[in-house]
Amino acid sequence: MNAAAAGDVAAWNRLEWSALDAGARARALTRPVQAVAQDTRRAVASVLDAVREHGDEALRALTARFDRVELQRFEVDAAEFAAAEAAVAPELRQAMVEAMQRIEAFHRAGMSQGYVVDTAPGVRCERMIRPVPRVGLYVPAGSAPLPSTALMLCVPARLAGCREVVVCTPPRADGSADPAVLVAARLAGVGRVFKLGGAQAVAALAYGTASVPKVDKIFGPGNSYVDEAKRQVVQGGAAAIDMPAGPSEVLVIADQGANPAFVAADLLSQAEHGPDSQVLLLSDSAALIDQVEQELAVQLAALPRVEIARKALSASRLIRVESLEEAFAISNDYAPEHLILALREPRAWLERVEAAGSVFLGDWTPEALGDYCSGTNHVLPTNGAARAWSGVSVGSFQNAVSVQAASREGLLAIGACAVTLARAEQLDAHANAVVLRMQEASA
Amino acid sequence: MNAAAAGDVAAWNRLEWSALDAGARARALTRPVQAVAQDTRRAVASVLDAVREHGDEALRALTARFDRVELQRFEVDAAEFAAAEAAVAPELRQAMVEAMQRIEAFHRAGMSQGYVVDTAPGVRCERMIRPVPRVGLYVPAGSAPLPSTALMLCVPARLAGCREVVVCTPPRADGSADPAVLVAARLAGVGRVFKLGGAQAVAALAYGTASVPKVDKIFGPGNSYVDEAKRQVVQGGAAAIDMPAGPSEVLVIADQGANPAFVAADLLSQAEHGPDSQVLLLSDSAALIDQVEQELAVQLAALPRVEIARKALSASRLIRVESLEEAFAISNDYAPEHLILALREPRAWLERVEAAGSVFLGDWTPEALGDYCSGTNHVLPTNGAARAWSGVSVGSFQNAVSVQAASREGLLAIGACAVTLARAEQLDAHANAVVLRMQEASA
Repeated sequence: MNAAAAGDVAAWNRLEWSALDAGARARALTRPVQAVAQDTRRAVASVLDAVREHGDEALRALTARFDRVELQRFEVDAAEFAAAEAAVAPELRQAMVEAMQRIEAFHRAGMSQGYVVDTAPGVRCERMIRPVPRVGLYVPAGSAPLPSTALMLCVPARLAGCREVVVCTPPRADGSADPAVLVAARLAGVGRVFKLGGAQAVAALAYGTASVPKVDKIFGPGNSYVDEAKRQVVQGGAAAIDMPAGPSEVLVIADQGANPAFVAADLLSQAEHGPDSQVLLLSDSAALIDQVEQELAVQLAALPRVEIARKALSASRLIRVESLEEAFAISNDYAPEHLILALREPRAWLERVEAAGSVFLGDWTPEALGDYCSGTNHVLPTNGAARAWSGVSVGSFQNAVSVQAASREGLLAIGACAVTLARAEQLDAHANAVVLRMQEASA
Repeated sequence: MNAAAAGDVAAWNRLEWSALDAGARARALTRPVQAVAQDTRRAVASVLDAVREHGDEALRALTARFDRVELQRFEVDAAEFAAAEAAVAPELRQAMVEAMQRIEAFHRAGMSQGYVVDTAPGVRCERMIRPVPRVGLYVPAGSAPLPSTALMLCVPARLAGCREVVVCTPPRADGSADPAVLVAARLAGVGRVFKLGGAQAVAALAYGTASVPKVDKIFGPGNSYVDEAKRQVVQGGAAAIDMPAGPSEVLVIADQGANPAFVAADLLSQAEHGPDSQVLLLSDSAALIDQVEQELAVQLAALPRVEIARKALSASRLIRVESLEEAFAISNDYAPEHLILALREPRAWLERVEAAGSVFLGDWTPEALGDYCSGTNHVLPTNGAARAWSGVSVGSFQNAVSVQAASREGLLAIGACAVTLARAEQLDAHANAVVLRMQEASA
């Protein structure tokens, strides 16, 4: 271990949970997310206004400004799709096909069915499932384009049966779209891709322009501008969104028997996402934490994205807890996006998980499997949103519509109940609509 | 029909769809909802700030100002619950019990189950259902308190198994809560009720105070201040919400065989909700529309809330369409909260419904049945939100958590796919976390 690596050890913020008071515990679990700055909020609002008012013209100007490329036309055409097919290596294409098949298998199995219940004689109630008519999928290209995100969004949109599915993804410097993203979209059955990124992409999807169709719901992760734009369009009622999005994060609960090299690799694989990412390790074993620290130093030195990972690790926490029960209490309070249970009996502990985006059981299930190809979705709630939001599923692309049908008999069976409640709420016309029919039905 | 009533006929905005150009069609379907005024937005923001910073003290001041009552303590105590039980008429209590049983039957039958799929040999993926830990339910008391809304929110919260369920409802002039709302909450198994209304109730639930617990998700309808407060807390990340809320609305599709008295009663029962409510009738029969107009005049005159209903009807539309197919196209575009199919073969038309909150089939199913006691939920998306939001269900109170477990065999089966994709996305630590394990697993 060299001096630089040894220097990191202190930065890994090793903590003894039992030695912390309530304030220190709260600070230990505070995410490194910055509150959205007032100027980010204003900048996004002005992008939204520009696109709403000036449409494609604004998109061209904003794309020139933020993506530094002049585009006359945003939609990917047949020639560019064909070029993308030729540009993607067969091995990558095959991996996308394989991943897509498992994503489809898992998502299809979880699709909601409608149901029917007779709640009284002659009163049939049911729920019908309907696709969200028009959806927009944002595929970011932070430090690198993310074809896997295209699969994670396009596959459930197609399974849901959405009438119109469009993808937006930032243009590259030469004005083209990432070939792997295009191939992923086409593999998953989505044919309309627009080269638009950032808040302007969200604006185009929310309001529509001459070239970009307006959609009902916008999906996908993105940077703080994309997230703020999604929040603003939902606030203004222009479109719904899948969930708020923040930096990625992982919480690992490991016992003494865990493999320290695996745990260190998992912490680093989260940390490389960016300097805002947070990684937490909770263990009841001080010895395991020692070993993980050593492994972190060794593996970190070998990583290409060492600076990003080092920065993220500076906001990380290696926490020794008194018991695994305590670890689960902390995890449930934190509600991590990714939760890795590096435990000897992970399934026995699973019932304790109250809030998390996605859970990885045991030593042989690195987070990367879920990120890419186990079949689960990787668009997950971050920043504690897992307490009240779920990851993307086919249901995210569907609405449930309730239906009721009463026969004369049904109306007579339950009408009096409705009349009593309507009158108690001083809604006489409600009562009247029932009474009129009851008179006719019993005539 | 007297002169005043005859004067209303013109105000009902009878339209021939085929005679309208695109602009006139869009105007015909424009809801009477006002955009949230800048001062409403500011007023709500300052209420949220006050409660976040000054907690119960702010709640006392705001309650004195907006509800004109001085409250030292907001939570309903045992004595007030007992007084409520004594104050509610047995007939009303019985109606609430009966409604609750059907609401429970319908909602229980629609509860999601987890599921498990093996996506590859040794790769098990599953979805677990978990209750949202802490939820806050807002029961409004616009022109009258709404115990039915207490049932619609409390029953699914209890079925979901939420750990903490609290209700907020505005205090009455004497500082008490509406007895029927208290009895409804208790019948449905919810014991904590706070006498708080408006934006300050939403703020208390989103941030928590010394006396009100912070919750993860806030449910329930309300006026424009409540709705704006819900939007602002979700924008700021303090809590999730069930859905945006706007004025209630109904769209009726009626054929020539429909009963004009029933249709008129249905339009009026929506109109009495408030002057912002919108009612639309679409029919392919001019004769039916004539008859409904006549019935509207007659029934309107007899209503206690005649002024409210008259005002709402002034924003209503009676539209003759060329065909029922055209009516469904218009309805799907409008995405009504309530959709009544006053048709001879309503079930045959049901598959055409793409977007709506709740559908009522045939002549014997007035909307009031769904509002109170058919078993479906009456907390529904308004203002076109039905294109991308669903009504409240048990699922609204639950999260789906995905889980994956790979064995050594499973890791070796799918690990290479993850590595290829990770490398294509330049996420080397992701690849490394898989490679390390693959080496160990095959060692």
